Amino acid sequence: MLLMGESINGTRKQVAEAIQARDAEFIKTLAKDQIDAGAGLLDVNGGVAGGDEVADLLWLIDIVMGVTDIQLMVDSANPKALDAGVQAIIDKGGKVPFINSISGEQPRIDAVLPLIEKHKCPVVGLCLSDEGIPPTAEDRFAVAKQIFDLCTGAGLPAEDLWIDPLVMAVSADPCAPGVTMDTLKLVKDRLPSRTTGGLSNVSFGLPNRALLNRTFVAMCAGLGLDGLIVDVRNKQMMATIKSIEALRGEDNFCGAYLKAHRAGILE
Amino acid sequence: MLLMGESINGTRKQVAEAIQARDAEFIKTLAKDQIDAGAGLLDVNGGVAGGDEVADLLWLIDIVMGVTDIQLMVDSANPKALDAGVQAIIDKGGKVPFINSISGEQPRIDAVLPLIEKHKCPVVGLCLSDEGIPPTAEDRFAVAKQIFDLCTGAGLPAEDLWIDPLVMAVSADPCAPGVTMDTLKLVKDRLPSRTTGGLSNVSFGLPNRALLNRTFVAMCAGLGLDGLIVDVRNKQMMATIKSIEALRGEDNFCGAYLKAHRAGILE
Repeated sequence: MLLMGESINGTRKQVAEAIQARDAEFIKTLAKDQIDAGAGLLDVNGGVAGGDEVADLLWLIDIVMGVTDIQLMVDSANPKALDAGVQAIIDKGGKVPFINSISGEQPRIDAVLPLIEKHKCPVVGLCLSDEGIPPTAEDRFAVAKQIFDLCTGAGLPAEDLWIDPLVMAVSADPCAPGVTMDTLKLVKDRLPSRTTGGLSNVSFGLPNRALLNRTFVAMCAGLGLDGLIVDVRNKQMMATIKSIEALRGEDNFCGAYLKAHRAGILE
Repeated sequence: MLLMGESINGTRKQVAEAIQARDAEFIKTLAKDQIDAGAGLLDVNGGVAGGDEVADLLWLIDIVMGVTDIQLMVDSANPKALDAGVQAIIDKGGKVPFINSISGEQPRIDAVLPLIEKHKCPVVGLCLSDEGIPPTAEDRFAVAKQIFDLCTGAGLPAEDLWIDPLVMAVSADPCAPGVTMDTLKLVKDRLPSRTTGGLSNVSFGLPNRALLNRTFVAMCAGLGLDGLIVDVRNKQMMATIKSIEALRGEDNFCGAYLKAHRAGILE
């Protein structure tokens, strides 16, 4: 399972403060801690409220690339920031980054598709259209198919599109996680793309969110979820992920599971 | 999810001692504790090494039916014990019990199918033939289909057959849980039966078995597992199950989840 470390994100208070103060050590530590915890790539989002997103993102990229050559994922709603971030990483000799994200929304398509065509950036594709998040799995799949056609038409290999089926809070709608899982099944059955998601919205408004989140990740992993946008520093979640990898045969003879056990980090 | 409480089982040391000593209070407590913890039916197995299984099973049934009218599941490898147990429950006015289990093994079919035909007992069907446990999902499904044809041919409603895809230890074979999950998918896709299993074999030989077991249950629940043969007194497992039920929309607006949280039993 590809773990997409989500923590370098300017919408989080501590990270925003570090960006504003140009606290490079904080960001370096955040990058290294996520890599040590098992991240397979690092999301980088410079979207601090009231900040200069392009400048902030370029600073973040510079700092992170100073301590690691791990693949990055440029995360922005701002087309200029996406373009500048992707270009900066390539110019510095980094791996072609992921983009987070494209969707079925026309403005997003207009902003992101040229970058995909030009650089063949792997991309997260959200099952979301100009009308919002479709309430049914079939309609979410239709958005996934549209994104698939656009991205592969732009020359992206199918396996570099990572569809995110999206999830809403189960506290507001008991069927919400079911729609997500049904969408995941449709994508796995019908498209040669991969799948990912940031699933923690599912537990919004409920107590013991960590329990619901780790359980939902395991349920989606049973359906074949390929990636996860996650705080890899969360020990309970990582214990579940180590178990998932062992149970899916991705951890031959459970070596990583046993190592995690010996390190005392299985909860 | 139908929780099949597995704890009244003469192959367990404490239960064997209680059976040998005719310690009715121990068995009554074990029945009540499982019901309080959320069991939807109770497995009853009188198979104590060196004991008189028919007599022991009839004693267990008598004790359990004295404290509850919950549905029972008669669990034996001995055709005479199965027959006597099912008949005793019906004679005492209990609900027609489940039988644990039928399989693709000819001696099991010969012993169990007449009981199914006569009483329409719901039954657990193990994906196991005279040649053993098939190594591939397609071959396990073939056994499930054979059992399905036999049971429905004997007049059993399809939904009263609960297919158990079986699982071997991941420590011995990294692909073992994958074969189980693939079998589960095939059964869910192709048969109108239900599915269940005792999944804890998966963690045999590894540390922190509770973590692997609860994670595997969630993965199978994502694939639609309908029932579970389980120690409902295991708090970690029950926390996962409460989460699964909320996430599958089986716990409307998370009422049972919130109740469990308030009771302090979500871990």
